[in-house]
Amino acid sequence: MINDKLPKIWYGGDYNPEQWGEEEWDEDVRMFKLAGIDVATLNVFSWATNQPNEDTYDFAWLDEHIDRLYKNGIYTCLATSTAAHPAWMAKKYPDVLRVDFQGRKRAFGGRHNSCPNSPTYRKYSERIADKLGERYKDHPAVLIWHVSNEYGGYCYCDHCATGFREWLKEKYETIDVLNKTWNTKFWGHTFYEWDEIVPPNALSEEWGANNTSFQGISLDYRRFQSDSLLECYKLEHNALKKHTPNLPITTNLMGTYPQLDYFKWAKEMDVVSWDNYPAYDTPHSLTAMRHDLMRGLKSGQPFMLMEQTPSQQNWQPYNSLKRPGVMRLWSYQAVARGADTVLFFQLRRSVGACEKYHGAVVEHVGHEHTRVFKESAHVGQELAQLSDKLLDARVHAKVAIVFDWDNRWAIELSSGPSVALDYVNEVHKYYDALYQQNIAADMISVDEDLSQYDIVIAPVLYMVKSGYAKKIEEFTTNGGTFITTFFSGIVNENDLVTTGGYPGELRDMLGIWVEEIDALAPEHKNQIVIKNKLGKLEGSYECNLLFDIIHSEGADVIAEYGSDFYKGTPVVTSNKVGTGKAVYVGTSPEASFLQDLLSNLSEEKGIQALLDVPHGVEVTERWKDGKAYTFVMNHNSEEITFELESTRKELLTNQTLSGSVALEGYGVMILE
Amino acid sequence: MINDKLPKIWYGGDYNPEQWGEEEWDEDVRMFKLAGIDVATLNVFSWATNQPNEDTYDFAWLDEHIDRLYKNGIYTCLATSTAAHPAWMAKKYPDVLRVDFQGRKRAFGGRHNSCPNSPTYRKYSERIADKLGERYKDHPAVLIWHVSNEYGGYCYCDHCATGFREWLKEKYETIDVLNKTWNTKFWGHTFYEWDEIVPPNALSEEWGANNTSFQGISLDYRRFQSDSLLECYKLEHNALKKHTPNLPITTNLMGTYPQLDYFKWAKEMDVVSWDNYPAYDTPHSLTAMRHDLMRGLKSGQPFMLMEQTPSQQNWQPYNSLKRPGVMRLWSYQAVARGADTVLFFQLRRSVGACEKYHGAVVEHVGHEHTRVFKESAHVGQELAQLSDKLLDARVHAKVAIVFDWDNRWAIELSSGPSVALDYVNEVHKYYDALYQQNIAADMISVDEDLSQYDIVIAPVLYMVKSGYAKKIEEFTTNGGTFITTFFSGIVNENDLVTTGGYPGELRDMLGIWVEEIDALAPEHKNQIVIKNKLGKLEGSYECNLLFDIIHSEGADVIAEYGSDFYKGTPVVTSNKVGTGKAVYVGTSPEASFLQDLLSNLSEEKGIQALLDVPHGVEVTERWKDGKAYTFVMNHNSEEITFELESTRKELLTNQTLSGSVALEGYGVMILE
Amino acid sequence: MINDKLPKIWYGGDYNPEQWGEEEWDEDVRMFKLAGIDVATLNVFSWATNQPNEDTYDFAWLDEHIDRLYKNGIYTCLATSTAAHPAWMAKKYPDVLRVDFQGRKRAFGGRHNSCPNSPTYRKYSERIADKLGERYKDHPAVLIWHVSNEYGGYCYCDHCATGFREWLKEKYETIDVLNKTWNTKFWGHTFYEWDEIVPPNALSEEWGANNTSFQGISLDYRRFQSDSLLECYKLEHNALKKHTPNLPITTNLMGTYPQLDYFKWAKEMDVVSWDNYPAYDTPHSLTAMRHDLMRGLKSGQPFMLMEQTPSQQNWQPYNSLKRPGVMRLWSYQAVARGADTVLFFQLRRSVGACEKYHGAVVEHVGHEHTRVFKESAHVGQELAQLSDKLLDARVHAKVAIVFDWDNRWAIELSSGPSVALDYVNEVHKYYDALYQQNIAADMISVDEDLSQYDIVIAPVLYMVKSGYAKKIEEFTTNGGTFITTFFSGIVNENDLVTTGGYPGELRDMLGIWVEEIDALAPEHKNQIVIKNKLGKLEGSYECNLLFDIIHSEGADVIAEYGSDFYKGTPVVTSNKVGTGKAVYVGTSPEASFLQDLLSNLSEEKGIQALLDVPHGVEVTERWKDGKAYTFVMNHNSEEITFELESTRKELLTNQTLSGSVALEGYGVMILE
Repeated sequence: MINDKLPKIWYGGDYNPEQWGEEEWDEDVRMFKLAGIDVATLNVFSWATNQPNEDTYDFAWLDEHIDRLYKNGIYTCLATSTAAHPAWMAKKYPDVLRVDFQGRKRAFGGRHNSCPNSPTYRKYSERIADKLGERYKDHPAVLIWHVSNEYGGYCYCDHCATGFREWLKEKYETIDVLNKTWNTKFWGHTFYEWDEIVPPNALSEEWGANNTSFQGISLDYRRFQSDSLLECYKLEHNALKKHTPNLPITTNLMGTYPQLDYFKWAKEMDVVSWDNYPAYDTPHSLTAMRHDLMRGLKSGQPFMLMEQTPSQQNWQPYNSLKRPGVMRLWSYQAVARGADTVLFFQLRRSVGACEKYHGAVVEHVGHEHTRVFKESAHVGQELAQLSDKLLDARVHAKVAIVFDWDNRWAIELSSGPSVALDYVNEVHKYYDALYQQNIAADMISVDEDLSQYDIVIAPVLYMVKSGYAKKIEEFTTNGGTFITTFFSGIVNENDLVTTGGYPGELRDMLGIWVEEIDALAPEHKNQIVIKNKLGKLEGSYECNLLFDIIHSEGADVIAEYGSDFYKGTPVVTSNKVGTGKAVYVGTSPEASFLQDLLSNLSEEKGIQALLDVPHGVEVTERWKDGKAYTFVMNHNSEEITFELESTRKELLTNQTLSGSVALEGYGVMILE
Repeated sequence: MINDKLPKIWYGGDYNPEQWGEEEWDEDVRMFKLAGIDVATLNVFSWATNQPNEDTYDFAWLDEHIDRLYKNGIYTCLATSTAAHPAWMAKKYPDVLRVDFQGRKRAFGGRHNSCPNSPTYRKYSERIADKLGERYKDHPAVLIWHVSNEYGGYCYCDHCATGFREWLKEKYETIDVLNKTWNTKFWGHTFYEWDEIVPPNALSEEWGANNTSFQGISLDYRRFQSDSLLECYKLEHNALKKHTPNLPITTNLMGTYPQLDYFKWAKEMDVVSWDNYPAYDTPHSLTAMRHDLMRGLKSGQPFMLMEQTPSQQNWQPYNSLKRPGVMRLWSYQAVARGADTVLFFQLRRSVGACEKYHGAVVEHVGHEHTRVFKESAHVGQELAQLSDKLLDARVHAKVAIVFDWDNRWAIELSSGPSVALDYVNEVHKYYDALYQQNIAADMISVDEDLSQYDIVIAPVLYMVKSGYAKKIEEFTTNGGTFITTFFSGIVNENDLVTTGGYPGELRDMLGIWVEEIDALAPEHKNQIVIKNKLGKLEGSYECNLLFDIIHSEGADVIAEYGSDFYKGTPVVTSNKVGTGKAVYVGTSPEASFLQDLLSNLSEEKGIQALLDVPHGVEVTERWKDGKAYTFVMNHNSEEITFELESTRKELLTNQTLSGSVALEGYGVMILE
Repeated sequence: MINDKLPKIWYGGDYNPEQWGEEEWDEDVRMFKLAGIDVATLNVFSWATNQPNEDTYDFAWLDEHIDRLYKNGIYTCLATSTAAHPAWMAKKYPDVLRVDFQGRKRAFGGRHNSCPNSPTYRKYSERIADKLGERYKDHPAVLIWHVSNEYGGYCYCDHCATGFREWLKEKYETIDVLNKTWNTKFWGHTFYEWDEIVPPNALSEEWGANNTSFQGISLDYRRFQSDSLLECYKLEHNALKKHTPNLPITTNLMGTYPQLDYFKWAKEMDVVSWDNYPAYDTPHSLTAMRHDLMRGLKSGQPFMLMEQTPSQQNWQPYNSLKRPGVMRLWSYQAVARGADTVLFFQLRRSVGACEKYHGAVVEHVGHEHTRVFKESAHVGQELAQLSDKLLDARVHAKVAIVFDWDNRWAIELSSGPSVALDYVNEVHKYYDALYQQNIAADMISVDEDLSQYDIVIAPVLYMVKSGYAKKIEEFTTNGGTFITTFFSGIVNENDLVTTGGYPGELRDMLGIWVEEIDALAPEHKNQIVIKNKLGKLEGSYECNLLFDIIHSEGADVIAEYGSDFYKGTPVVTSNKVGTGKAVYVGTSPEASFLQDLLSNLSEEKGIQALLDVPHGVEVTERWKDGKAYTFVMNHNSEEITFELESTRKELLTNQTLSGSVALEGYGVMILE
């Protein structure tokens, strides 16, 4: 349990009373209670208020709000306010200001704006965390610490340059090792002194979004910046921990955010929390994947949904309303996949600045007679009634999908073979194939123990880190099914190619040699032609993007290319390894192929859909004390029906169901 | 009359004899006379010639040209030459150079390139105006002063930063008021000292074209920069006025140019002038709207068409020729809508630099035997013959459309609900609906007296300035018909939301409450379903973009949505207010809806088309001494016919017309 | 012969042994021999290795590689390593770092990164060339010097500013002449002192790719930067020549690369070499045109194919493999058009940095059992067998197409009439019309002697340099057929318009006056209507882009416009001049028109297709000692057949062929 002071699914969200006055504060409390809100996140962006100048700290305003809320039964998720530095600090200590990718020194503005290697920022962010820890360590209202907010963005200033060199020295020890690792003989970039190295940005090695002349330095700079921000987090974390060793600490992450290695971050966090902001056209399965990824950061430990909008966002191109029922549906989607909180950004809408058109529980109209408020209150009542029933429940998955930020960075930075290759998209294609069949999957790091899984899928495992090939081989040898794809096994963790034939360290296990990798414009298709009908796999499927030209070195050929000069050569192979097998998909297939392939492989392992439901209905399970809680979530706007094999209790309605069951459009059931 | 020395529609334009020699000067005079040209705009870009160094001024060359022209019956519109600073000044006083939106200090180049808060620029631009005023105050050739040229562009330098802080101090008096107004508690941007405030650009609060973290500072910076440039104008204006209190002063504006608040500017100008450069695909009605807007800047006072091209432009992507007759047609379109001059850029084409492919009366070939010259001469003869007949004639409109730059800026800066919302487009949709029916409209500011109108339309009146709601309510109470749209009444003049329910201060008058505002991608359509046939309104119309979810609080529901979860809820309403009414259109409709709606509302007020003509024929009237001059302008390439109810004299041909009348493709008639 | 030490078509390419170790070096030699490789380009990017600090030079590593290869029969193309400066140099002497178009000082990174006016760069690049010359002057392995690599890119630093002013002083002598030439009276840009002039970039006169306020300065800056880089080349060239007066010197060019005036460069080079990197969708005829242009740089002298990929590139969006046979086909395409070498980038694939996915003869797998290696070895064998048969053979063309970088720059910089006008595209349209009919053409400079040609085509001869009109007139007077197009004869070599009627200096010869130039969006088409069937010209063809409105002043009207207000006016004309004629095409026609037109004109001159072959088959001839070598190259993937009129020996197979001959998909024949 995140904090047993409040043994239920927490409900509430970001609250900025400092933007309002007495009158609204009273109304807020009245309405929060109406809505069943029991947690408010305070102090997210109040550094300038807390510390009006270098020497003065003033938390009286915060005391007041925490107390007022607590008296009314509302707990506090207490933020440290360091996600935007005060204007006075930027003026007095410009080192807090970042230098951007273009090499431009920033001026005061925006948020998430501090250089992570700024001595001033580190000093004062640690100090305010320390002061908050000291002040609120015994306050009964405080449930959890919320360090900073949505960490992200890179800096390229001189402090970062110096820090980067230190980081490199620690990693490589000698400049010779660095030169070798970055292959600096290429284009004569040999470094003789550490201080010849400059941050890779638009003035030096990089251009555009992810283009670089040297993958080595660019990859390391991403690691360094992720580490630098993590260091900032840790400074605050430790300062707080000193005062409150038992209070959990988190910071809110952002799903598949590209810039930070969240697996590394999660190790330093007590509980993972994240902000879920799908666009109007985000596939439901991508949201699901992100939830599962957040759950996977700490090996399945329940996480917090820290932010979602009650209805509308403001920063999308087109900010559609969440249709009636959809906020509830998506809230339960989070819970269904491991969230133990349902929190909003925000509880009351601002009247000024750029988020004033972001939805809130209390809208600009200021009263409770709105659709959004009513739906919010409805969910609040349901969560109250659910009590602690689902807390700490675990998802059980026998299938795992590997996700790795280092690998992602390396793929994104790669020059060739195709600009159309997008790691997250490729991972999502495999995830979606399982999702459409309601087969549970974990999203795991390369550090995860594989023995708990029957099937491990590692799409585009371009980078094979030290020891990982061996780990997979053990998994397959012991009976596991491993699946990987084109453009895998190519480089080591420093993005240096493993010579001797693709897919490098995976070659033996996969029983294939990839001689060449063709890349065609996305509109150019080839076909995956199944050699012999195999379970659901039959006939021909489309594929595009990349096309490995494969020689079997022992692997069974499941399918061959249907056209081009490599027509008739292997495209999908399967190799027996010990009691398991290793499957290779040498191209980027259409969805139906992956569904059929993964259906076959799952069936072999006795893994089945959790429930047989119509298209567009998502089904998951969380387990607790040997009991399964089955979530049935209808993403269709129309009612659907499905068959229950046994009699089940529905938790939200307390009805007992069996046989043919109807579920309204955007409806949710939790079957005990 | 702009200047009664030349009591006719002035004809001529920009002339740069300094780029030529004796031989061309003689030819020019000969050809100008052939073309009926009587006004030349001189000295627009000659600062470097006039002032070759800090201490020397030399206007001898200018004397010569003014005199030569005047001897040949050609008057001078005399520019002050300050639209581009000399190269020597940029070298010696870099403060004249701007810092751009990216934070980069500019080097010498281009035009409209001076920082408006540069002490050097202010000093020397004022001084040269003073010297010109002194020198030419008694010259009989000078008809009008033309200060600088096409003011525009913003600067972000330290002088501007300082000036901005002064401007803010004057506006807000205390930093607390500023903090409150900008809602700086959001994201912890509280300022404690004025000098913590920096200009909002790509290094601080803004990015892209119109994105900002803080609407407050960005809105104020636009106002400040508009004011700063206006201050530069005023320095020159006053310097000139001192010498020639009776000579009119103008500067050439640019229609719907986004960066300057032209209503504020027009107050400081004796006469409005503007440059009309439609692209090959600009709708005729948009050009018409811009003319009407320019006329509206000084409440209907005739304006100057300062620039148009005789045929070709050079800076459009595709610079099509004006088809035969089109230059004449568009010249009369300007006159028809209030212009008392027809001036070109330019009289002779340059041979070098970026405008050498911009058309001119005298083309590169250098003689008069060109289509362009002949058409120019034809118009010259007609204007000579029209004499002073149309001078000072007024347009009478009973319909007004509100246009407001502050509102425009606030809408453009808004983060959410939709990037597809474009203020000028939405205004133009309403304008176009009137234009297609040849119903005259005035484009007015929020300061305009409304009592002269029967119908006032304020599309997307997002920002309701202090007192404006009351003003509209008086208008409706007294019988007026007011029309506004979705996303109106949202904020006050500081872009702070009016809480208590949209559309804020307009809610009572409109008799509705807008609970939510849905935003969908432009390709997603809904329908406006008319409840009961009402005049021309009948059946169903398409709409898109934004969709207000409306509760009637007394207003009549004219139409409901046809689909989505708000199907059947109000989309168009009409509320009785006193003897008038307030109509609300909750979405962005297709053109036919607006035509039908405005046709109905106009008919109620007895407002009718000026003439019944085929599609593509524009009709306007100017009134003088109780007489109407009806302009009939055929934008079609083919001949059209229409019926005249009475016998009318056509001024350009001196023919008397009645009954069925034919008008050739691109033809024009002025019926007395 | 480039160097008679190796009297055959050289075969090999870029080789970077410094990135590898002993083991690979031995393998490389073994495989190079297997592949018939006899030339390796060394030392392209090894400056940092050669000169580890300011005072130390170390070429021992290079000695070793040159020797090892030479012992194994492999010669060296020896590069000077100056295409990327060492990191230590950038740190110690920042003047080597460029200032980019945005005005940003670059940091260390990338390649082709040195300011061409940097004193440090000039000093050390000359010095290393000197040292290499000294060291290897007597080495038997060295066949040719390869100075730097792919020169390009512009700099805008203070050294360049100073250099630019010197360059201008030399060109214009007085500031008055400069002012007049740049037409600085426009926009008041008069310069009084040289140091008021700043480089034209995004901070001053230019924006975007090719937009400028002043064409004069921008055109001169391109010339200056091209000259500055050429000066760097010459410093090295001369340093080498001092030591090895008889060794040829080259630098690798890049076809239609926009930034350098290659005709001017070629004058300083002993032999032209270039890098051929077609994208997956580059038309074959565009590659052919580039080969012909490279051949034309030195008036038909054979050139070197310095780089091509054995199969895959890495920096295209989609890096498709060269299909089986295509590398061979494209290698012979180069030879067929004048190349006396076939060299690759690269011989062994890198394992790190941005070109690791660029193909190589030795792929990452490291052995010879790959398709790519086998195809490479096959070509190697063929080239060995061809021996010196084709060396120095010349292409004989009676048709020439004029290509001019100054003209190209002026067109690109032009503001108006149309952004869709692309010089290289328009030239290529004419080239392609000949290519499709297998009519040989030379690509020539404006300095080339025209008397050797029957037909000279100068598409969009916008800029007519001093004396060039006369030269063409002599050509036509003496019987030649000259063809030019719309937007020709407009300006002189300083981009100043020739007044008195377009097409300026060409007007008399062409017998036309172009009164106006219409520009429409590319989707707007007009028609070229042939007046009287003339050879293949018949009926109507489509055209778009620009439309000259033409008056014949003696020229015969071949075709008229089919629509718009200039319907029925001339669009294609032909004027008799002496015994020749001058043809004008007043718009941008569809391909079939140009094929028909050029077919007619060729036939008149007795110029015919080299062979009658199906579509997609390219035919060229090289002549040596009175013998023709006919290359037949099938770009289709399927086999084709064609008829031979006489019995011919095929050189690659040593077969004798006659009658109906089959050629496999992607196949090549060389018929003696």
